[in-house]
Amino acid sequence: MDLLNLDPLLRQALAEDLGRGDITTDAILGPTGSSTVEEIRFQATLIAKENLVLAGWPIFIRVFQLLGEVEAQLRCEEGAPICSGDTVGRLEGKASLLLKGERVALNFLQRMCGVATLTRSYVERVAHTQAKVLDTRKTTPLWRALEKYAVRMGGGINHRVGLDDGILIKENHIAVAGGVREAIEACQSSMNHLQRVEVEVRNHQEIRQALSAGADIILLDNMTAEQVQEAVEMIGGRCLIEVSGGVNEKNIVQYAEAGADYISLGVLTHSSPSSDLSLILEPR
Amino acid sequence: MDLLNLDPLLRQALAEDLGRGDITTDAILGPTGSSTVEEIRFQATLIAKENLVLAGWPIFIRVFQLLGEVEAQLRCEEGAPICSGDTVGRLEGKASLLLKGERVALNFLQRMCGVATLTRSYVERVAHTQAKVLDTRKTTPLWRALEKYAVRMGGGINHRVGLDDGILIKENHIAVAGGVREAIEACQSSMNHLQRVEVEVRNHQEIRQALSAGADIILLDNMTAEQVQEAVEMIGGRCLIEVSGGVNEKNIVQYAEAGADYISLGVLTHSSPSSDLSLILEPR
Amino acid sequence: MDLLNLDPLLRQALAEDLGRGDITTDAILGPTGSSTVEEIRFQATLIAKENLVLAGWPIFIRVFQLLGEVEAQLRCEEGAPICSGDTVGRLEGKASLLLKGERVALNFLQRMCGVATLTRSYVERVAHTQAKVLDTRKTTPLWRALEKYAVRMGGGINHRVGLDDGILIKENHIAVAGGVREAIEACQSSMNHLQRVEVEVRNHQEIRQALSAGADIILLDNMTAEQVQEAVEMIGGRCLIEVSGGVNEKNIVQYAEAGADYISLGVLTHSSPSSDLSLILEPR
Amino acid sequence: MDLLNLDPLLRQALAEDLGRGDITTDAILGPTGSSTVEEIRFQATLIAKENLVLAGWPIFIRVFQLLGEVEAQLRCEEGAPICSGDTVGRLEGKASLLLKGERVALNFLQRMCGVATLTRSYVERVAHTQAKVLDTRKTTPLWRALEKYAVRMGGGINHRVGLDDGILIKENHIAVAGGVREAIEACQSSMNHLQRVEVEVRNHQEIRQALSAGADIILLDNMTAEQVQEAVEMIGGRCLIEVSGGVNEKNIVQYAEAGADYISLGVLTHSSPSSDLSLILEPR
Amino acid sequence: MDLLNLDPLLRQALAEDLGRGDITTDAILGPTGSSTVEEIRFQATLIAKENLVLAGWPIFIRVFQLLGEVEAQLRCEEGAPICSGDTVGRLEGKASLLLKGERVALNFLQRMCGVATLTRSYVERVAHTQAKVLDTRKTTPLWRALEKYAVRMGGGINHRVGLDDGILIKENHIAVAGGVREAIEACQSSMNHLQRVEVEVRNHQEIRQALSAGADIILLDNMTAEQVQEAVEMIGGRCLIEVSGGVNEKNIVQYAEAGADYISLGVLTHSSPSSDLSLILEPR
Amino acid sequence: MDLLNLDPLLRQALAEDLGRGDITTDAILGPTGSSTVEEIRFQATLIAKENLVLAGWPIFIRVFQLLGEVEAQLRCEEGAPICSGDTVGRLEGKASLLLKGERVALNFLQRMCGVATLTRSYVERVAHTQAKVLDTRKTTPLWRALEKYAVRMGGGINHRVGLDDGILIKENHIAVAGGVREAIEACQSSMNHLQRVEVEVRNHQEIRQALSAGADIILLDNMTAEQVQEAVEMIGGRCLIEVSGGVNEKNIVQYAEAGADYISLGVLTHSSPSSDLSLILEPR
Repeated sequence: MDLLNLDPLLRQALAEDLGRGDITTDAILGPTGSSTVEEIRFQATLIAKENLVLAGWPIFIRVFQLLGEVEAQLRCEEGAPICSGDTVGRLEGKASLLLKGERVALNFLQRMCGVATLTRSYVERVAHTQAKVLDTRKTTPLWRALEKYAVRMGGGINHRVGLDDGILIKENHIAVAGGVREAIEACQSSMNHLQRVEVEVRNHQEIRQALSAGADIILLDNMTAEQVQEAVEMIGGRCLIEVSGGVNEKNIVQYAEAGADYISLGVLTHSSPSSDLSLILEPR
Repeated sequence: MDLLNLDPLLRQALAEDLGRGDITTDAILGPTGSSTVEEIRFQATLIAKENLVLAGWPIFIRVFQLLGEVEAQLRCEEGAPICSGDTVGRLEGKASLLLKGERVALNFLQRMCGVATLTRSYVERVAHTQAKVLDTRKTTPLWRALEKYAVRMGGGINHRVGLDDGILIKENHIAVAGGVREAIEACQSSMNHLQRVEVEVRNHQEIRQALSAGADIILLDNMTAEQVQEAVEMIGGRCLIEVSGGVNEKNIVQYAEAGADYISLGVLTHSSPSSDLSLILEPR
Repeated sequence: MDLLNLDPLLRQALAEDLGRGDITTDAILGPTGSSTVEEIRFQATLIAKENLVLAGWPIFIRVFQLLGEVEAQLRCEEGAPICSGDTVGRLEGKASLLLKGERVALNFLQRMCGVATLTRSYVERVAHTQAKVLDTRKTTPLWRALEKYAVRMGGGINHRVGLDDGILIKENHIAVAGGVREAIEACQSSMNHLQRVEVEVRNHQEIRQALSAGADIILLDNMTAEQVQEAVEMIGGRCLIEVSGGVNEKNIVQYAEAGADYISLGVLTHSSPSSDLSLILEPR
Repeated sequence: MDLLNLDPLLRQALAEDLGRGDITTDAILGPTGSSTVEEIRFQATLIAKENLVLAGWPIFIRVFQLLGEVEAQLRCEEGAPICSGDTVGRLEGKASLLLKGERVALNFLQRMCGVATLTRSYVERVAHTQAKVLDTRKTTPLWRALEKYAVRMGGGINHRVGLDDGILIKENHIAVAGGVREAIEACQSSMNHLQRVEVEVRNHQEIRQALSAGADIILLDNMTAEQVQEAVEMIGGRCLIEVSGGVNEKNIVQYAEAGADYISLGVLTHSSPSSDLSLILEPR
Repeated sequence: MDLLNLDPLLRQALAEDLGRGDITTDAILGPTGSSTVEEIRFQATLIAKENLVLAGWPIFIRVFQLLGEVEAQLRCEEGAPICSGDTVGRLEGKASLLLKGERVALNFLQRMCGVATLTRSYVERVAHTQAKVLDTRKTTPLWRALEKYAVRMGGGINHRVGLDDGILIKENHIAVAGGVREAIEACQSSMNHLQRVEVEVRNHQEIRQALSAGADIILLDNMTAEQVQEAVEMIGGRCLIEVSGGVNEKNIVQYAEAGADYISLGVLTHSSPSSDLSLILEPR
Repeated sequence: MDLLNLDPLLRQALAEDLGRGDITTDAILGPTGSSTVEEIRFQATLIAKENLVLAGWPIFIRVFQLLGEVEAQLRCEEGAPICSGDTVGRLEGKASLLLKGERVALNFLQRMCGVATLTRSYVERVAHTQAKVLDTRKTTPLWRALEKYAVRMGGGINHRVGLDDGILIKENHIAVAGGVREAIEACQSSMNHLQRVEVEVRNHQEIRQALSAGADIILLDNMTAEQVQEAVEMIGGRCLIEVSGGVNEKNIVQYAEAGADYISLGVLTHSSPSSDLSLILEPR
């Protein structure tokens, strides 16, 4: 999460909300650049309204900084659990700046905390096993870097960030290639020494094909925990095993205990509810 | 929702996923531009995996069209309810194109349907009253136009699209302006004949100030349904009434029956779960 | 007029003039980055060559600041009347920077002062009446924010900033909708509680239709002052009245005295002559 | 005037006016993408409301084309004189497209015709002499290519398009360089074989210095026609002569007859009034 | 090499050369948009002036297509060896378009063929061994995708495309991490199941540390062929071996025969001379 | 070479290499924004590994500055000859920043020094004659400003920077125009007083035509030194003479001594090998 990369995104989000300008704030405080009332400095306190895992404070602050100078003080740490009612941090700056940036900054932060909080709850459920929690590419378009970062803050591990930084052969690729072996071999012949081949399989036959063709990782898709256990035994450590599809808060432990090395969950990024936080302004 | 405006956003989302290129698909089908295997045409069928309200088909299709030529056929209508198992539509095009666009297109569609589906459920609950369901500015950054569109497809009405297309005086503005009357008058003196003034109030005294200063709309924030009913009587039709804060699926009817003209809900856009849809590829 | 928004525009204007670089200045002072002659600091004095209303000093300065560091001192105020020969302000910085930015900065300022000066002359003519002077969307493409700002500095009020921040039904909309009533009702059914409906009418019949359909504002287009007076009486305060078309410096008083609430003028932005200002450089 | 270059500018101008969308047209015709009413095709006729020289028809049409398909038919030629009341051309396309593009397209065209019309009036006044009419860099920021094109359509010749495509030493350069000779020699030592040196002079002494240093063109700034005549005699054909400053419609003939090779005028681009044209829509 | 991605780059390159327009061609053929002479269609024949490997025809063509319509016909294949004097392909289109695009299109093609041609010469030298030829990140800035593509056309394999798609620990990383083991373990703890760890080593001790920490690939930097042979024996197949530094056309065979799995060469992209091709225009 | 213009290019080059982030450095030093290890400051020393002419230090430094704060100290001067083993300069900053920017910064610098070094070798060969060394438009796409700058640092003179800042009639233009005279006259009729006409000729007849039509410069293409000498005599000082085609390190002196005013060489920019420089990091 490099600010060099994210500034254009944040500016775009500010432009989306500000449009041609904040007509309410400008009516009250005068247009940007006038010299009298606007100089009033306010303090803004960020408070958690429910338990959550913090993710996105640097983004939250950066949104305001793109509008002008603010002083910021974080009272806890990225990735830390926060209790309802706790003060997360404080900002100080011109009133107009705080009013104009508030909604966008909160919209970023609330979604990121939501992702981190949900991730943490899954990670904790399987903490006693060898299984690691992965995200997927089922992210909100334009939010991949932010949501993947929030998953890390929640204790998860990032799967591929895009189609270009890892080979994952899915069912549709197999259909197009004409078989598991054909697909794996096509990838092997064009890849370099830093890459590995992961392949999604649906049954024992495909597992056998994947193993014989030399897959590095096998992805068991939409199997029950029992089926996963059988597959784990069949594979016998010859490659890594990822599980996805049909996993939820109730059954994730069973999948983990069945021997999966990795469990990937789309829900972390496509359906996590926003965390509730609020920003309270007071004059200095 | 004008494609003139949205193409850059969709391209950005494709770039986010494709990065430097889809190395799995390219390994199997050859790099873009080669002439043999890639020409295989596939058909893709879009199927609902749960009940939902459709929103976003034009976006779904457009994502693929930015990658090349596809033929698309919609089997229902934007805004229509779809049952689990129904076929929403079909696409046909080169296999490589379908494989490369699938995830991004689904990521857009699933979120938009999620917003429309949740909106519809609220709209239906208050259909017997005069109350209208509004969204808020608590949208996913960079997604405002898409989420506001999905709200409309779900039967909701859009509140302000940004800070520039409507005056809404909130508590923090009042604090900065020095009072309800001061804030309203500042807005009245700079606005033109096409604009109106809405003001957020917390109690009876502020309602009285707002009415006497000539507010066009009063927003009752975080009040119980009983408090709303009292406020409605006190206002006596002198201006429009919007309610927000603390409204959920269970109590929305009470708020509507208490006499609110508009009920606005952040949950529609910040916490709606993604709808489940899947795309199945088959050779032609 | 938010610098967050305008910097890209100003950079574009600088790029338009500088192209691949100022070959004359570079020949004389050496290329950017060399260390000897270029460090010469100059002072630049901005002088009005005719009477004008100042608008655009922050833009004027910002152009230079995008090229490097300058110190600036304004000797009067935005929106103030300036007499021919008066010193408007002073700049100090590297000679190369002042030479490279001079033309672009003046081109911005001279046009903005021209708009403000012409607006002020209209505003003063109707200052004794209730009528307010409005601009239109007949602005120089890419200059809307700047020209609308200059109109405000001249004492005018801004009409819609674009097609998205207000409803104005014009003749062509009526033709397409099939009538005044049909057009108004279409807008009423899709608008939210912060919006109003303005409709352009050509005769008494259309005024009656507009009133009965519930228009909030009626725009009387291309009528004589006498016709406006009749219309004002007919409307009898049931809605606001805007007048446009055929208004000039000579007859604006008649229109205002006929009872128009608002008078809108395209000439303010599409045909205002540039104000004459010059920048004189001297070594420090 | 290459459409490859100008499309981004035109899109920017459309975005400036459309913002988040044309709410009036969308209310009446339905949002973009709906299939019923919007398909109504209209014809639009472009009519001159005063005498003018046509410049900008390709831009006018291109604005609409960026919104969708239109058929266009020009009834005269770029650069031709048009009489008040004449039909310039016709468009045909969807009603929504014509309504949304109208204002932006006219704003471009009216300004460009204004520049061409004013240029033509100057060019005709000196047509019996050897003098050629030049524009300057006093153009509307972001409009240089468009205004320079309009000057050509009016019969003028373009001076430098920017600071990078020609050497012109002005008074401020001389001050910085330490003298006319020093400035000229600095340019001569860094220029290539395709470039020439023009230098602005204020008096006989500077003319002598310029000639002796080998200037290719001398620019006589703010001189009377008599002073120009003296200078012409003094120079005696040893280099080309440009005149600028203080030239207006009344005295331009005197300057031309005094022997200037080129006369440059800022007024062509910074103060030309907009030409009056209107677009009338009718159903097909 | 996806045209979706490359169009902006190609447009930028055209803008770099065209600037404000091709004044020579426009003088001769009239400005873009005029209707007479420009319509002349020409044929252009692309001829190799020396032996080369073809890479970049799709880019060559695309440059012209961004200027307008052209018909193109390739007479051989990407990656094929071409002899001096052979016709590579033909274009047909408007004369102005061919004149304006020629230089930029050739500049792209000549460099890409140069890279492919040099790569092929290295690949052929080691074709009898197990060693594969890799490129590096020592590419021309802004050209990475194009040069990496050209390397593939020459028969080479692409190493990492950027810092984000593979882990490679270099000397400086080791210095910062505090040792080979520390650096490898840091990477192992944050990577996912699709990634591998490559580490650059300078001596036997570092090889031992890398092996014991579980490196997947060892990069032997700046060693002689003899030293490589020793290292190969020491590693004994426990991981893959890449060699870089000090390899040239004369000694590459020795390195390959010493047992390197991969040999990487910066020279392929940073110092390959341009291939000589020319484009001959004739009227149709 | 104005940093205002080049920053976007440098950012693009950084984005090309960094992609979604430097996973190796981030694994070792922690993600951007964390506060512990990353703060380690390192010193980086830039050393020449062969004799070269320095060009591009400001670019080299700027690349790092776009990533964060660095202190830089140049030990010599742009354009100066550097000996193998010499220290060119030093940088100091955070370790992560130095690791992330190193490759891109070196890729820029090595190419620019390569161009300057080759240019210097040609310039020195003809230093005893009147001939000047020119570059061409055969530059690496997207690198024109950088390569032209490097040519100047090597002592060469820049020919046209693009198609818009000079008139050069080439063979293909003559073919299209219908003759040397026709082409020259077309250019003369549309050019302004700051421009000149250069024309490429192949034989004595074309030289005669060019002279009689009033060409300002004649470009002798692909002639032997003997043919150039004949042409020089024939032209007899009536216009400037440029030579190009077939010139190399061995015969350039003959061309210069034959009387050419300018000799232009594509090899300077399209086939100069990269200079070898390395950056060594040490903790402070």
